[in-house]
Amino acid sequence: MIEETKARKILRKFRYGMVGGGIGSLIGDVHKRSIDLDGSAQLVAGCFSRSFETSLETGKMYELEENRIYRTYEEMAKAEAAREDGIDFVVIVTPNSSHYPISKAFLENGIHVVCDKPLALSSDEGRDLKRIAEEKGLLFCVAHIYTGYPLVKQAKLMIENGDIGKIRSVRGQYIQGWMATPVEKTGNKQAAWRIDPKQTGIANCMGDIGTHIEQMMAYVTGLRIESLCANMTAYLGRELDNDGQVLIKYEGGASGMLWASHIVIGHDNDLSFIICGEKGTLEWHQEQPNDLIVKMLDQPTQVLSRGNGYFYPEVNAAVRIPSGHVEGHFVAFANIYRGFTQDLEALETGAPLKYDYPGVDAGIEGNVFVERCVESNRNGSAWVKF
Amino acid sequence: MIEETKARKILRKFRYGMVGGGIGSLIGDVHKRSIDLDGSAQLVAGCFSRSFETSLETGKMYELEENRIYRTYEEMAKAEAAREDGIDFVVIVTPNSSHYPISKAFLENGIHVVCDKPLALSSDEGRDLKRIAEEKGLLFCVAHIYTGYPLVKQAKLMIENGDIGKIRSVRGQYIQGWMATPVEKTGNKQAAWRIDPKQTGIANCMGDIGTHIEQMMAYVTGLRIESLCANMTAYLGRELDNDGQVLIKYEGGASGMLWASHIVIGHDNDLSFIICGEKGTLEWHQEQPNDLIVKMLDQPTQVLSRGNGYFYPEVNAAVRIPSGHVEGHFVAFANIYRGFTQDLEALETGAPLKYDYPGVDAGIEGNVFVERCVESNRNGSAWVKF
Amino acid sequence: MIEETKARKILRKFRYGMVGGGIGSLIGDVHKRSIDLDGSAQLVAGCFSRSFETSLETGKMYELEENRIYRTYEEMAKAEAAREDGIDFVVIVTPNSSHYPISKAFLENGIHVVCDKPLALSSDEGRDLKRIAEEKGLLFCVAHIYTGYPLVKQAKLMIENGDIGKIRSVRGQYIQGWMATPVEKTGNKQAAWRIDPKQTGIANCMGDIGTHIEQMMAYVTGLRIESLCANMTAYLGRELDNDGQVLIKYEGGASGMLWASHIVIGHDNDLSFIICGEKGTLEWHQEQPNDLIVKMLDQPTQVLSRGNGYFYPEVNAAVRIPSGHVEGHFVAFANIYRGFTQDLEALETGAPLKYDYPGVDAGIEGNVFVERCVESNRNGSAWVKF
Amino acid sequence: MIEETKARKILRKFRYGMVGGGIGSLIGDVHKRSIDLDGSAQLVAGCFSRSFETSLETGKMYELEENRIYRTYEEMAKAEAAREDGIDFVVIVTPNSSHYPISKAFLENGIHVVCDKPLALSSDEGRDLKRIAEEKGLLFCVAHIYTGYPLVKQAKLMIENGDIGKIRSVRGQYIQGWMATPVEKTGNKQAAWRIDPKQTGIANCMGDIGTHIEQMMAYVTGLRIESLCANMTAYLGRELDNDGQVLIKYEGGASGMLWASHIVIGHDNDLSFIICGEKGTLEWHQEQPNDLIVKMLDQPTQVLSRGNGYFYPEVNAAVRIPSGHVEGHFVAFANIYRGFTQDLEALETGAPLKYDYPGVDAGIEGNVFVERCVESNRNGSAWVKF
Repeated sequence: MIEETKARKILRKFRYGMVGGGIGSLIGDVHKRSIDLDGSAQLVAGCFSRSFETSLETGKMYELEENRIYRTYEEMAKAEAAREDGIDFVVIVTPNSSHYPISKAFLENGIHVVCDKPLALSSDEGRDLKRIAEEKGLLFCVAHIYTGYPLVKQAKLMIENGDIGKIRSVRGQYIQGWMATPVEKTGNKQAAWRIDPKQTGIANCMGDIGTHIEQMMAYVTGLRIESLCANMTAYLGRELDNDGQVLIKYEGGASGMLWASHIVIGHDNDLSFIICGEKGTLEWHQEQPNDLIVKMLDQPTQVLSRGNGYFYPEVNAAVRIPSGHVEGHFVAFANIYRGFTQDLEALETGAPLKYDYPGVDAGIEGNVFVERCVESNRNGSAWVKF
Repeated sequence: MIEETKARKILRKFRYGMVGGGIGSLIGDVHKRSIDLDGSAQLVAGCFSRSFETSLETGKMYELEENRIYRTYEEMAKAEAAREDGIDFVVIVTPNSSHYPISKAFLENGIHVVCDKPLALSSDEGRDLKRIAEEKGLLFCVAHIYTGYPLVKQAKLMIENGDIGKIRSVRGQYIQGWMATPVEKTGNKQAAWRIDPKQTGIANCMGDIGTHIEQMMAYVTGLRIESLCANMTAYLGRELDNDGQVLIKYEGGASGMLWASHIVIGHDNDLSFIICGEKGTLEWHQEQPNDLIVKMLDQPTQVLSRGNGYFYPEVNAAVRIPSGHVEGHFVAFANIYRGFTQDLEALETGAPLKYDYPGVDAGIEGNVFVERCVESNRNGSAWVKF
Repeated sequence: MIEETKARKILRKFRYGMVGGGIGSLIGDVHKRSIDLDGSAQLVAGCFSRSFETSLETGKMYELEENRIYRTYEEMAKAEAAREDGIDFVVIVTPNSSHYPISKAFLENGIHVVCDKPLALSSDEGRDLKRIAEEKGLLFCVAHIYTGYPLVKQAKLMIENGDIGKIRSVRGQYIQGWMATPVEKTGNKQAAWRIDPKQTGIANCMGDIGTHIEQMMAYVTGLRIESLCANMTAYLGRELDNDGQVLIKYEGGASGMLWASHIVIGHDNDLSFIICGEKGTLEWHQEQPNDLIVKMLDQPTQVLSRGNGYFYPEVNAAVRIPSGHVEGHFVAFANIYRGFTQDLEALETGAPLKYDYPGVDAGIEGNVFVERCVESNRNGSAWVKF
Repeated sequence: MIEETKARKILRKFRYGMVGGGIGSLIGDVHKRSIDLDGSAQLVAGCFSRSFETSLETGKMYELEENRIYRTYEEMAKAEAAREDGIDFVVIVTPNSSHYPISKAFLENGIHVVCDKPLALSSDEGRDLKRIAEEKGLLFCVAHIYTGYPLVKQAKLMIENGDIGKIRSVRGQYIQGWMATPVEKTGNKQAAWRIDPKQTGIANCMGDIGTHIEQMMAYVTGLRIESLCANMTAYLGRELDNDGQVLIKYEGGASGMLWASHIVIGHDNDLSFIICGEKGTLEWHQEQPNDLIVKMLDQPTQVLSRGNGYFYPEVNAAVRIPSGHVEGHFVAFANIYRGFTQDLEALETGAPLKYDYPGVDAGIEGNVFVERCVESNRNGSAWVKF
């Protein structure tokens, strides 16, 4: 059992700003509460909406100084860069199409970035961001939050350490049902922007949640995609995909299947995986994130429960409350920020970076994944090299 | 609740013989016990093994008359056809390669057939069997036993009746782990013949259990495959596939993924499906066969428990004990025989046939499925028309 | 994995008769199908109903010779005892109040008995049956069928072998919901006789299913009740209990709680237990009978799946199909008969008896349990010595 | 689906102080993070330990002004009461024996209180606290955090609204395994103080977690205990109980069983209940807090998933992220603080109080419950009036 607080001794509370996340949006608020829960940074500036009125209202709700609530992100990037007490990093929670220009603006002003996924509209944009970040020596985190769960890290470490042997076959899925009907016609803003190619890019479902499951599989298995074929379908007269099934051949010979969908009724947020190796099988379900299922050759099925003593030390380092006390979405999110701010501290102290959060490469890979899926689908679901 | 016995008033007990199923084999015994449980037929003849000694020993264990224990199936087919009290049907439980000649021999002697899956080594063989059966007016059942579960029938009826609307996307899997290591080298006979192309045909895993999940999806959804691509892998230096992942485009636009595997460690017999329609989603897991999971738009998830009053009447007609009392493999098997012997009765009474069991067409479709998967796999997992 | 058939080489098929179980009843049919599945005995005689017409109809359905379908059980006991090929044992599946006289009649005529539970209307009746059986050297089995599940035997053996150490605290429940409303008023015969003290005795729910969970706990733990207090409630104006909660102090200091209920809506047949020892905890749920949950100190939770290699040998000896293929109620029932007929064989061969089935002592203990619960409840749920 | 942020417009951030919770303790940190997540209050003062050094270190970690880190709680209560910007409320997270004097000190200085459970060492102490709070017009919250889960509120509302009819029978349990071995001898501080009557009072397990399940059942069902009998056991030579089983008769005739245990190996934090009414049954498991199981007469089992549209409005008002995104312990805790600070706001605005958090009465009832259990146990588990 975890007995003692995992309160990390924090060097100093970092200052951050937010772009997007105005009152009425969901994800900005989740970012903020997660950072508050983590305790490592403090919101001090923002440009929360294209409507300055909304932005002002949001900033006041968060008790910001009024002169740090901005009309445009360009203004914000410059002004904050100029301040002695300017923000250390920015959190970008806008629709996909603006991720690139906003990220670029802050990077160019020397500000670290946490950006929602998918990273950009294209992998070229993504690579451009990577180039700038590297030139400036800046950190870049893409909010693939599900890899923040401690048991996902346990799965990753087990595979790295050879516990289940060489991987043979995997299946991942991220299926939801909330777009199974034309909710965009009855006021659902989340649906409305996602089905609009101008805001969302070349793919909807595959970019929105397909990139999450792709990143999850890459993170946990360490496998690299060699080629893939994808069958994507748009429903309800929409332009972009609502459902996509993908077959994957990994470098080294492993096989994989992925399913991303917005139209599987009754599945709220079903991200899960099975990873089958030569010596055992691992399974995890995001909706029961505190359990990891491990099946070793000729042994009973094991259910590992977060917080117990039998985990890798790095896993328990990320655990905040005792076993049986549920850690959920906010905590997983907080763990991503924990990894990010640890590296911010390392930059200040000169310690080596740990990169214990999804970086710009994961974001670029996500964009490549979407591009290849769309290419395959356009060519009759033909196989395409990755 | 089911209160009363479901003992069917049986016209007469049918007589059957068995080919294969000698002492030491598994599946013959399961067939026999299931038929005994059903109570509709009685074992009276057999050719249980190529070794007459084993055959004799088996027949005596089952208390057969010694002159109805045969040295060859050809002899058995002729002799039983010649007897006034000869067998009504034969149960064939030999390795795949002999399904065709044995079935043919009995059909040609005017004897109905229940044959294990896959039906034959090729769809051509299968079509030949169909032709003979039709010419002779004989029944032919292929032992796709998992569709004998009452809740599978409920799923089928719900879809037929439009309860979940038009189907959009499906996922099926039949994954096991018992061939993850070279068990054929340590005396496992089940593995030994399955990896031998001479006995098993052009595919191992895809024929052995892939056909089960293919037939399950076809039975439940009523969808027809338009084209597919398959990625199949052989491990441990074996010649034939141990793992296969398949992407499917169905006629009418639905998408599908299937996974069949013998090497997913810790999965004992994991046949399961998710079927997603415009109005709802259905899920069933063979390892918990008494529950059907139904997710309707904007409603709580429902778990339907076999034996309760809210099922379609045809489903409860197939239920033998009250809800909460587990019905398992033997009962599902018995239900297949129930459907088969009901049609045998119908042949005698002149009542219309109901075909409430997997017929020769399902068997042929299974063979076609395997052939297309192998073809696709040989061509770099290219898409092939079904 | 279980690869090979578990067909036991049977010395000879025993002959049995049935009292009760006329067309329209449930449990007689379940007994018969289970015995057929087991293959160790054959129904040859019966007195299936007080109505001879029903009895005749039932017997003919089962293809009995007409002269072995009897008008009264007394006549049957005498006639069968007199025949050279008379029945070896009788199966009694009538309402509780007739268990005693019928059992007695067959015992006195030298016929072994399998009797439904509860054994009798009182422990005195039960002890009388035991006395006669012992005097005559006859076997007596009480149909506590749930202990026929292989994983229940695994739990018992683990405890006997000290795997979970000394037992500290246990909880058992057997809760159903089918009598939550006055179904006896709308034609439910099962409910009608159970609420009638003349047919059911001094308790309804506690006798009907309370004895099952009591026997289960006694069988698995080996613990003996020192004292108990019971709170029993009758609903809907019924005379007898529909719900009972019991606190138990076991000899040696362990604590226990039992809950038996007919009125927990939505629980179909929820018999389950948690047994907590000094070194680990065991859990089993009758509705998922193929899994045993084992929690050992500082270890991940283990789920043992029936049919795998890691069980005690005695457990796998009772397994009939491979892991992942569900064994259910009929198989558990068949296992009880397997144990019983093995001892019948032993009587013939002179081999030592194994008593691998619930005997008359378990039946008597069940009656004592009901008597003590009723006594406690009448005295304001006071503690009473067992 | 929940689409929009549930960020409550907060009147103002309240100021709070903490007593207990020094570096190395668990629960203080959990309180603080939960409040941060909620965003309604800010830590500004503290007396975190009897060791001033530890207190200083803790306060600095939390970035407090040094003059608001106190040597004693008495000093803190007075000093904060005297400040214009003094704390609005105090959070008390010390061992049980000091809850009463510390609460009293702050109440007498006019400061609202949030106190860990159990409220006090005796119900007399509890009633004294209630008296003072009422005299002073102060709010008092007892940290029975599990009723902060939205689905627990759904269960409560369903019962209040008669959805499952009059309650008949209930079972609650809160079982853990972490004290199954003498961990107090190997440095486990949490265990060490809990087994010491001077710090913990007249009961260990029954006070520590028994009060949680008692409060849960009272909150959800609205039932009042008429009488109870308890069987409590101390293991490993400890003075106080580690396991307790309780039978309850509720006013109005319902029956109940409770089980609280620290020695059920492998159960991490298993708080759960079944509540059976005339029309349906409700079940909830703290380790899967986002699901509520509802079984209505003659209907399939329903699994309600937090965040969907079919809940009572008050329930969704307490939901912070969409369905399928797990809300856990920190969020439940935050909900308790949300209810508490809403009433703090109401006090300022003159709006009516809602008491949407566990109050001093729940704390007193917990103390009475422990007292009655101990009394019953001392008298041979006799029934005692509540």
